[in-house]
Amino acid sequence: MTEMTTPLSPRELDLMNAYWRAANYLSVGQIYLMDNPLLKEPLSKEHIKPRLLGHWGTTPGLNFLYVHLNRIIRNRDLDIIYIAGPGHGGPALVANVWLEGTYSEYYPDVSFDEAGMKRLFRQFSFPGGIPSHVAPATPGSIHEGGELGYALSHAYGAVFDNPDLVAACVIGDGEAETGPLATAWHSNKFLNPKRDGAVLPVLHLNGYKIANPTVLARISHEELEQLMIGYGYKPYFVEGDDPATMHQMMAATMDRCFDEIAEIQRRARVDGVTERPMWPMIVFRSPKGWTGPKVVDGKPAEGSWRSHQVPFSTVRDNPEHMALLETWLKSYRAEELFTADGVLLPELQELAPRGKKRMGDIPHANGGLLLKELRMPDFREYGIDVPKPGSVEAEAPKPMARFLRDIMKMNEKAANFRVFGPDETASNRLGELFEETDRTWMAGMLPTDDHLSRDGRVMEILSEHTCQGWLEGYLLTGRHGFFSCYEAFIHIIDSMFNQHAKWLKVTGAEIPWRRPIASLNYFLTSHVWRQDHNGFSHQDPGFIDHVVNKKSSVIRVYLPPDANSLLSVTNHCLRSRNYINVIVAGKQPAWQWLDMESAVRHCTSGIGIWEWASNDANEGEPDVVMACAGDVPTLETLAAVKILRKLAPELKIRVVNVVDLMTLQPKEEHPHGLADRDFDDMFTTDKPIIFAYHGYPWLIHRLTYRRTNHHNLHVRGYKEEGTTTTPFDMVVMNELDRFHLVADVANRVESLRPQAAYIKQYVRDRLIEHKEYITKYGEDMPEVRDWRWED
Amino acid sequence: MTEMTTPLSPRELDLMNAYWRAANYLSVGQIYLMDNPLLKEPLSKEHIKPRLLGHWGTTPGLNFLYVHLNRIIRNRDLDIIYIAGPGHGGPALVANVWLEGTYSEYYPDVSFDEAGMKRLFRQFSFPGGIPSHVAPATPGSIHEGGELGYALSHAYGAVFDNPDLVAACVIGDGEAETGPLATAWHSNKFLNPKRDGAVLPVLHLNGYKIANPTVLARISHEELEQLMIGYGYKPYFVEGDDPATMHQMMAATMDRCFDEIAEIQRRARVDGVTERPMWPMIVFRSPKGWTGPKVVDGKPAEGSWRSHQVPFSTVRDNPEHMALLETWLKSYRAEELFTADGVLLPELQELAPRGKKRMGDIPHANGGLLLKELRMPDFREYGIDVPKPGSVEAEAPKPMARFLRDIMKMNEKAANFRVFGPDETASNRLGELFEETDRTWMAGMLPTDDHLSRDGRVMEILSEHTCQGWLEGYLLTGRHGFFSCYEAFIHIIDSMFNQHAKWLKVTGAEIPWRRPIASLNYFLTSHVWRQDHNGFSHQDPGFIDHVVNKKSSVIRVYLPPDANSLLSVTNHCLRSRNYINVIVAGKQPAWQWLDMESAVRHCTSGIGIWEWASNDANEGEPDVVMACAGDVPTLETLAAVKILRKLAPELKIRVVNVVDLMTLQPKEEHPHGLADRDFDDMFTTDKPIIFAYHGYPWLIHRLTYRRTNHHNLHVRGYKEEGTTTTPFDMVVMNELDRFHLVADVANRVESLRPQAAYIKQYVRDRLIEHKEYITKYGEDMPEVRDWRWED
Repeated sequence: MTEMTTPLSPRELDLMNAYWRAANYLSVGQIYLMDNPLLKEPLSKEHIKPRLLGHWGTTPGLNFLYVHLNRIIRNRDLDIIYIAGPGHGGPALVANVWLEGTYSEYYPDVSFDEAGMKRLFRQFSFPGGIPSHVAPATPGSIHEGGELGYALSHAYGAVFDNPDLVAACVIGDGEAETGPLATAWHSNKFLNPKRDGAVLPVLHLNGYKIANPTVLARISHEELEQLMIGYGYKPYFVEGDDPATMHQMMAATMDRCFDEIAEIQRRARVDGVTERPMWPMIVFRSPKGWTGPKVVDGKPAEGSWRSHQVPFSTVRDNPEHMALLETWLKSYRAEELFTADGVLLPELQELAPRGKKRMGDIPHANGGLLLKELRMPDFREYGIDVPKPGSVEAEAPKPMARFLRDIMKMNEKAANFRVFGPDETASNRLGELFEETDRTWMAGMLPTDDHLSRDGRVMEILSEHTCQGWLEGYLLTGRHGFFSCYEAFIHIIDSMFNQHAKWLKVTGAEIPWRRPIASLNYFLTSHVWRQDHNGFSHQDPGFIDHVVNKKSSVIRVYLPPDANSLLSVTNHCLRSRNYINVIVAGKQPAWQWLDMESAVRHCTSGIGIWEWASNDANEGEPDVVMACAGDVPTLETLAAVKILRKLAPELKIRVVNVVDLMTLQPKEEHPHGLADRDFDDMFTTDKPIIFAYHGYPWLIHRLTYRRTNHHNLHVRGYKEEGTTTTPFDMVVMNELDRFHLVADVANRVESLRPQAAYIKQYVRDRLIEHKEYITKYGEDMPEVRDWRWED
Repeated sequence: MTEMTTPLSPRELDLMNAYWRAANYLSVGQIYLMDNPLLKEPLSKEHIKPRLLGHWGTTPGLNFLYVHLNRIIRNRDLDIIYIAGPGHGGPALVANVWLEGTYSEYYPDVSFDEAGMKRLFRQFSFPGGIPSHVAPATPGSIHEGGELGYALSHAYGAVFDNPDLVAACVIGDGEAETGPLATAWHSNKFLNPKRDGAVLPVLHLNGYKIANPTVLARISHEELEQLMIGYGYKPYFVEGDDPATMHQMMAATMDRCFDEIAEIQRRARVDGVTERPMWPMIVFRSPKGWTGPKVVDGKPAEGSWRSHQVPFSTVRDNPEHMALLETWLKSYRAEELFTADGVLLPELQELAPRGKKRMGDIPHANGGLLLKELRMPDFREYGIDVPKPGSVEAEAPKPMARFLRDIMKMNEKAANFRVFGPDETASNRLGELFEETDRTWMAGMLPTDDHLSRDGRVMEILSEHTCQGWLEGYLLTGRHGFFSCYEAFIHIIDSMFNQHAKWLKVTGAEIPWRRPIASLNYFLTSHVWRQDHNGFSHQDPGFIDHVVNKKSSVIRVYLPPDANSLLSVTNHCLRSRNYINVIVAGKQPAWQWLDMESAVRHCTSGIGIWEWASNDANEGEPDVVMACAGDVPTLETLAAVKILRKLAPELKIRVVNVVDLMTLQPKEEHPHGLADRDFDDMFTTDKPIIFAYHGYPWLIHRLTYRRTNHHNLHVRGYKEEGTTTTPFDMVVMNELDRFHLVADVANRVESLRPQAAYIKQYVRDRLIEHKEYITKYGEDMPEVRDWRWED
């Protein structure tokens, strides 16, 4: 417990409380008023918004913390970023950013005077105005807090490699119930006080969610204390409802916490202590809707879940509510806070930090401002030698791992690149990274540990949520990153992806002052086709489908067919800005098709005819187009081509490979979309297309349904068939294998009609042989295992 | 800490250790051998599987716990279900289920003798055999454990309303790092010892994930202890590596834990104590790959992450590894455990429980066996009176809430129905449930609390993961449930949905002994179109897209347009089995279209022409088909129809409404699919179709691209445009509004060409008027607010 010291002089206490009143006043104003901001006239119907939206409950607490953090910044000259987990309390952050002057600098229309205050009120949750959350439009925010659970992982991500930054992270007791938040506490096992900044978590217990009490507010003090200690923190409790007492307690507690943070950092940076410290954290228990009306319509409001959103509505037509609102607003005594022109009194202005120290103006919250180009070697140098297509085998991620390793090295000094993953870096064949760096680890170490260190730059925790949250925080504060994950389990962060994609869409389209940040790069491997050993639960290629629902301005999907194309794509993604790039490629040894220059050309186009695999050159149109996207479908397509060459040598086959899935969409729908004319040239307007696709087949239909030749398109892909079996059996179970592809051609090419029966019998025989072989021997038949493109 | 008592007699200790050796032997055999199961011949190449798959690391620990739980069951005559969080340790559970005799009863081919043992070994992770996890094929399992995070919420779900059941839940220290698991510990705040069973969590610290140490294994004993106490448990530690000592410690600890569970239950059930108890839990720290080879190729194996999967491979071609395997297998001294015929010695058989007490045979793990029909009133009685389409307004979920309330009441005695949701039951207009029941709450209570009780049947925690996990556990053990959630945030459990859908697909298609269970019913409300107040982060209708990627045999999607159709759909879903039903409907006051009988007819067809809104009757084909799916699109379509009637009275419009989205797919792809002929009749083969859809528009294309008239289909839906604005502006931003629909008709119907310019000008004017109005007044214009179908 905090000792009851009183660090604030009476005058300082008065001023801070006045500043808090000002913020609360502005918050209530935003929720209710569209005019008469200083209450110069008696409140009346036309001053009240017709739709009352917003979350009051959490707001006074957020305001309270803001004024106290301002004090810390001024007294200690610190850089602090404010992460508002309860982002619904948007009015609080907007109010404070306006009070410190930042808001009017970003939005000159919302000036620092009465006219600006009126706009400030009116725009909140108003058509054409601003959202109700700490959305991208709010200066100082990197965390919208619309969907709950990610405040703490964002905070940690923000301070990694930012030794001089402190993230003050407010966690609502509702959010604290979510899984992602519950495990994010353990991020302290990955934070090195020497090279990283600090996170000060503030667990804000106001006791209620929308309609329920919260778990952490209703366990005993002892349990809560032990929980926090168990998570590795030293908890300080600030609890109560009397503002004066609470100000003194909070000031004393914050002083103590920042002293401890400074001391932890000093010990690590000066004394060379490497042990994980117990970081301080604050449990802040204050009434929900603090300073709001105590009772509304005869029911308790302050301190109850009834204060969660707007404590009372129907103000326009309810004189009692109107009077209640006026009393409430007047309780803040705005006339003692603002000049008649609506300008905050100078002595109150003094309480806010200056310039870039203001939490609304801290550059880390507009990470693009701080973004340095990643120094990168020429990716071509990492390419593997492919003298002829299909002449060598390789594990595609390995050259990429060397490329990433050297990027790591070249940016060691800038310390602005990390690789994230849920315990799969080595498994995903990125082990060569460990020649240059280690896994970050601040928990206990043993002599037998492998590539663990306090200074590692590979972040591994068995929580996709935490990896994603860290990475988002890292990118949003102006750094670079790379996330590798098993394909099936990336669905765990579907919803986090949504939120980040929405953030990027809004910033790119509507907020010019937000500078572009590095793209979020996913490398999805251990993909559906090579989860033959892990079985059905590990087989799901649907993340691509999820991704392409988001705005085409922010999403990109790549399916490089081999190692050199994976390198080229990776290089491109790491240089891009404001996108979410999804790269899907296998990690198993596989045939290589493209030499480096061909790979670069192919990836630059995103789609192309593979002449060397086709036999329709100089012959006008082919009889059939065999298209493929993804490494395994590419292999099966080429194997099918080879069978067809033997069975029907006269058949003219064109092989098209797709790296950039978005080329399939019309140009009008995605900037990478192929023009219709080019699409028609490539896919013909009337020949059968047999498309072997990595994921769920209908996605290809959805991308191409407007194309001329769509009615001739036949797609094979994953259709939720799978188990623990052999790799080839996986494709057979889903009818994506070479034999089914051959049958598809025989079924669809008119000129093959005379041979069709024979070809289909051949296919049936091979498939029976396959099943018999695997059942007997437990591995794929030699014809498949030993297959080569060139005999 | 457990006192060092020695509850096991020397003979009992010997026998239990022998049983454990048998299980370990069978586990190693499953991973490595395809023949020579009793090592009667010297081990040679052809006995070894060509592909070595499986997870050894966790397996001996799982086996250890199994033999100790067997002891508890026998000594206390308890019903225990074994939840193996580390489901990758499939060999352990399969071995034990075979040893207790269950496996051979379910799979007579895998007999309880040498031949059966050979099959047991060969089938594991072998083509045509069984998966490597505790998949649906494993008797006794309700939890596959392929994707990590859900063991503990499944365990709690299983014991709710099962007062005589104990779920022994093994949580791997890898899984413990996931978010869903980290918050699931708090499930003890929702477990009532009087009416529910008990969960005994066993945190199995073997120290490593795939390639990393684990967080919880590398924090101090004190931190871990406080963490568990903070979570509300009383932790007991069983730590070491000497089998004899560990057996005594585990036996003593389990005795103590089950004594405490019994005492907690006695106090609650006999003494009437209502306070939340501190439930016991066990921290079980044992070496990874315990009893496996200590060193492989000069590197530590036992007690290291190198034991995670197969400790050494390339056995066939590596004589050293072959010898190592033989030594390892022989270290279990199978000849002392099995007869020469491969039958477990009788004195060891004695250690397993009998019949339905065996954990492999417990009926709760095959919940369909225990499933009782839900008693349900006639849903028609809850219908609202709709004298004419569009003549009354209502909030659709409210009649459904009354229906659910009465179901709750009628099944009170059976205690087999619960409603789940993340703090949104009241917000989602299901508050009338609280006339019959309360929210479950075992944490602290205050006199001001609203409908909280120890005996509530509404489960609310702000964790979609926990809600989903509880519900799955509840359903899989043979009960019924209903999950209401904000539409956008259901993506949080995308990946859990995947796993449950995969479980259902496999059980339905391949495992006849698994009896059908109640469907998992989602009610998604607060949907994309009415998140105008919460803004862009709360707007995402993509869960439907995610769902339809799964097997058509298990998924159903409904978009009832009004209250009566919502009732009809809900009734249908609650009666269904082995499906995942997704129901999407708004909660705001909205016009009602169908009286009860019309609603039943419409929902039974799933799709239909709304004659009362169409004017093409007896006129041959219409000029245009206006289709709609979802409540808001239905409203906008009807409003567009009304405008068109005024502007172009001669236009023949057919209105088609879709409740069951799967009717759009071809019959070959989904059992609910409309036959092509019927589809053509309804949508014509050559007239324009303007389709207003609730979600992402391309889904409709993906479902219908094979239909004859697909090329005339024009779909409007959500295209990632939104913010905090008015409800009508939300549809305008996405061009799904009545005016855009009218323009779409004008653009596409040939016969309207003369009027097209006029109509489009009319539309533009209205849209400008709309924007001006909302910007000025902050609410929708009266023309929209006061709209009625009938003037």
